[in-house]
Amino acid sequence: MHQLTVADVVREHRRSRAHVTALVDGEHRFNYAQLDERSNRLANALVAAGVGRGGRVLWLGVNSFRIVELLVACAKIGAVLCPANWRQSSEELRFVLEDLRPAVVVWEAGPLEAALDPIRADAPGRWVCHNGDGPDDYESWLAAHSADDPESPVSEEDPLLLLYTAAFDGHPNGALLAQRALLAHSMMLGAVRQVEEGFVCLDSGPLFHVGTMMFAVTTLVFGGTNVVLPTFDPELACLLIERERCQAAVLFPAMISQLVEANRGRRFDLSSLRFAPADDDWNSMITVDTSPWGRSLAGYGQTEVGGMLTYHALGLNGVGASGRPSLLVQVRFVDLDDHEVPDGEIGEIVARGPHIFSGYFNRPELTTAKLRGGWHHTGDLGRRESDGTISFLGPKLRMIKSGGENIYPAEVERALTGHPDVSGAAVIGRPDPVWGQNVVAVVVLEPGREVSGDDLIAYTRDRIASYKKPKDVIVVEEIPRRGFTPDYDLLDTRYGGGGYPGGQTNQQG
Amino acid sequence: MHQLTVADVVREHRRSRAHVTALVDGEHRFNYAQLDERSNRLANALVAAGVGRGGRVLWLGVNSFRIVELLVACAKIGAVLCPANWRQSSEELRFVLEDLRPAVVVWEAGPLEAALDPIRADAPGRWVCHNGDGPDDYESWLAAHSADDPESPVSEEDPLLLLYTAAFDGHPNGALLAQRALLAHSMMLGAVRQVEEGFVCLDSGPLFHVGTMMFAVTTLVFGGTNVVLPTFDPELACLLIERERCQAAVLFPAMISQLVEANRGRRFDLSSLRFAPADDDWNSMITVDTSPWGRSLAGYGQTEVGGMLTYHALGLNGVGASGRPSLLVQVRFVDLDDHEVPDGEIGEIVARGPHIFSGYFNRPELTTAKLRGGWHHTGDLGRRESDGTISFLGPKLRMIKSGGENIYPAEVERALTGHPDVSGAAVIGRPDPVWGQNVVAVVVLEPGREVSGDDLIAYTRDRIASYKKPKDVIVVEEIPRRGFTPDYDLLDTRYGGGGYPGGQTNQQG
Repeated sequence: MHQLTVADVVREHRRSRAHVTALVDGEHRFNYAQLDERSNRLANALVAAGVGRGGRVLWLGVNSFRIVELLVACAKIGAVLCPANWRQSSEELRFVLEDLRPAVVVWEAGPLEAALDPIRADAPGRWVCHNGDGPDDYESWLAAHSADDPESPVSEEDPLLLLYTAAFDGHPNGALLAQRALLAHSMMLGAVRQVEEGFVCLDSGPLFHVGTMMFAVTTLVFGGTNVVLPTFDPELACLLIERERCQAAVLFPAMISQLVEANRGRRFDLSSLRFAPADDDWNSMITVDTSPWGRSLAGYGQTEVGGMLTYHALGLNGVGASGRPSLLVQVRFVDLDDHEVPDGEIGEIVARGPHIFSGYFNRPELTTAKLRGGWHHTGDLGRRESDGTISFLGPKLRMIKSGGENIYPAEVERALTGHPDVSGAAVIGRPDPVWGQNVVAVVVLEPGREVSGDDLIAYTRDRIASYKKPKDVIVVEEIPRRGFTPDYDLLDTRYGGGGYPGGQTNQQG
Repeated sequence: MHQLTVADVVREHRRSRAHVTALVDGEHRFNYAQLDERSNRLANALVAAGVGRGGRVLWLGVNSFRIVELLVACAKIGAVLCPANWRQSSEELRFVLEDLRPAVVVWEAGPLEAALDPIRADAPGRWVCHNGDGPDDYESWLAAHSADDPESPVSEEDPLLLLYTAAFDGHPNGALLAQRALLAHSMMLGAVRQVEEGFVCLDSGPLFHVGTMMFAVTTLVFGGTNVVLPTFDPELACLLIERERCQAAVLFPAMISQLVEANRGRRFDLSSLRFAPADDDWNSMITVDTSPWGRSLAGYGQTEVGGMLTYHALGLNGVGASGRPSLLVQVRFVDLDDHEVPDGEIGEIVARGPHIFSGYFNRPELTTAKLRGGWHHTGDLGRRESDGTISFLGPKLRMIKSGGENIYPAEVERALTGHPDVSGAAVIGRPDPVWGQNVVAVVVLEPGREVSGDDLIAYTRDRIASYKKPKDVIVVEEIPRRGFTPDYDLLDTRYGGGGYPGGQTNQQG
């Protein structure tokens, strides 16, 4: 009786908000009664195609309202939806298919076909084209099945959403978010964003990413309207904000600049949009959001916590840049032995609570390791500040041990990039017979600037503990990277790194 | 790893909000670090006194910060706190003691002793006086136990709060609210009230009632400050609002009038208080609350749902007076056979979801009956309106069957009291050989008014279905009552009622 699933929430919306618009996408517009009915048909279609409880449904396409209705359909039968990153190569998509073994793949004809063609022929599972018009297309498939609620046995602990992330070994891992996790995260995000009745959100980022998905799910949970943008297009975004009176959107600074540009001459009325302030042009086009979330979009999060673990909005005047935790989690900072470190000291951020993920799909050992002791080990470093607020410092990756002291590269790198002449830094440990390891800084300078290694060492010594300061500084033109993080293995090879505690030398954390 | 208890929330607050004031009460002022430590000591004291998981702790006194810290202490060991209605007679308190069998009773010396004296002598359990100064007083008891977290095995499904309510047979029943229920309800209320960081709430109503307790718990969950008023005193309330910069309070219209009166001459600065508007005096003293909750405090609730089941704030412009359900519940309207009735028809309000109660303490049969089929049967009647919003109509009590049709007295009574000359109405069913029963209205007229029975019958026929209209109208001076509801059994005896379906004749619903 105390259980609640995403399906239950939509069932209630069908009754209490039947005529409220749930989804808008191009010509498509459905209210909650229609969403509930369509998700019933879809759920029955998925079951007929062999998707059982725990079965996987893969979405291969750009943003679409169908991702949301498939999510609700999966919620009704205890299945798992994976909206894949459509920007991936054929090889990457093949990996996802082989890893996920979906019983149903909903795919998109058109520009994405080039990447799909090499794998579609020999791939198992039922493939449904969502934008085709053949006899086997999505709408015919949906219409051919009963509108009755399947009323399958489903638990709120069943995983519902799978998002690939965390490519620890070069291949991504599928983080599983349970029905309850999505609801819990939505309640917290909705409280911080002060979502009210009649909320309309423009899903303007990719739904395969938790940053957009968390807003889409929160909008669904609060009975609001998801306006889906297939891919980001500033002109279309302006048009939809005006036409649908969107109150929220998922926007990064570069996207805001594009919207301001697209709205030169004030062709569109964007005043319904309540968003964090940016430049004067932006602030005068929109309504500045005064909710805690609007006052600061910052915080710390990752896919594995359902989106946001901490909100700067909960500690706006605090010391820590990442604010305070969601009210539905506990956060600790631990050392390598999983002992809690004192406030002010750096440790790995670990967390527990209802919106933490349920592990990685098909990775029992990794899951056991990440969730050891009943706490999710984020793989990120942070610190509890003197006022209880939290600072996220960077990925853990690896640790340097010098003179018996633990030194995290992220902390030294942050100190180095605080110097006005330094534009980038990566820190490695070099074996030393006396100290175990010495800290070595690899830095990139701002164009046209010059600064000596000794000056940089002196600069860091004023900002972090002396034992953490670099013993050597190497100036380079560019720091090699793997994705967003420095390629530490390559840096070790080039600059003599090694001797890490716990055999981390070859770990890309 | 996904579990979360009220104790966990306070454990996190100790880390993230150590220096935030948690409790203010007279000379007492404790921050979250102190609350966490005191609740550890209390939890260890309770265990030493024999309170195990599921054990009961009874509070017999007016409002105090100690109710909140005892709640946290109970949360840490899986025990149940019952803050009893201190206005009860000795006999009523004796019933509570015998029903609850608490291992620990925390009681208050002073004005309440007169009621407690007759039962204290022979009552079992350890009695601790919270405002005495003997060797066995509360503070000495607390201080004598370890400040270490007991770290007992506790589930979020464990009942934590017990509130007596629902005196179906003349004696109250203790509704059990689980740890998770309190957290879920707090997230929803906090979202509707738009509780932000730094929230300060004046607990100005009785903490033995869910209406005040739900705000105290929400304030605790959001890491805010509970300012506890022992009993309502308008002058002290004004002083505390000014001194503590209270943002919220639990106030009914009569209390608002008293505050306005106490603040004639604007002796106090009440501008920190964000509350729903009332008269001009009030509105100019406070800051009018623009949150959804501030726009309408209405809704439908009861102790058994954790407080509020529906919020008018979620359907402000809707047809139904009670708005829409909390996002964390499902609501249905069912007939006597538990079949869902169509929209627009009256049925019993049933509900499920994480903030519904866990049953009545020590009432297995009643609990089974109320929670049959996995839905809580509220015992109240309501209707889903055409736009999906909800109207609460009144207590179910009993049903009249006439010509095969179901007629709920509350609906006919509501129609009758809509007449300008009618001040009160109670409706019974009188056995009839043809129709099964006929509707009989017992009405009280406004002073000095006169209206014929035929006119009243015609009046109701224009407002409700014809088969529901009274066949007979009896004008009386006063309607006999049991508590707030008409004494239907006595009315049956006096005016020939009987023949109710399902043998309801002697049921005071």
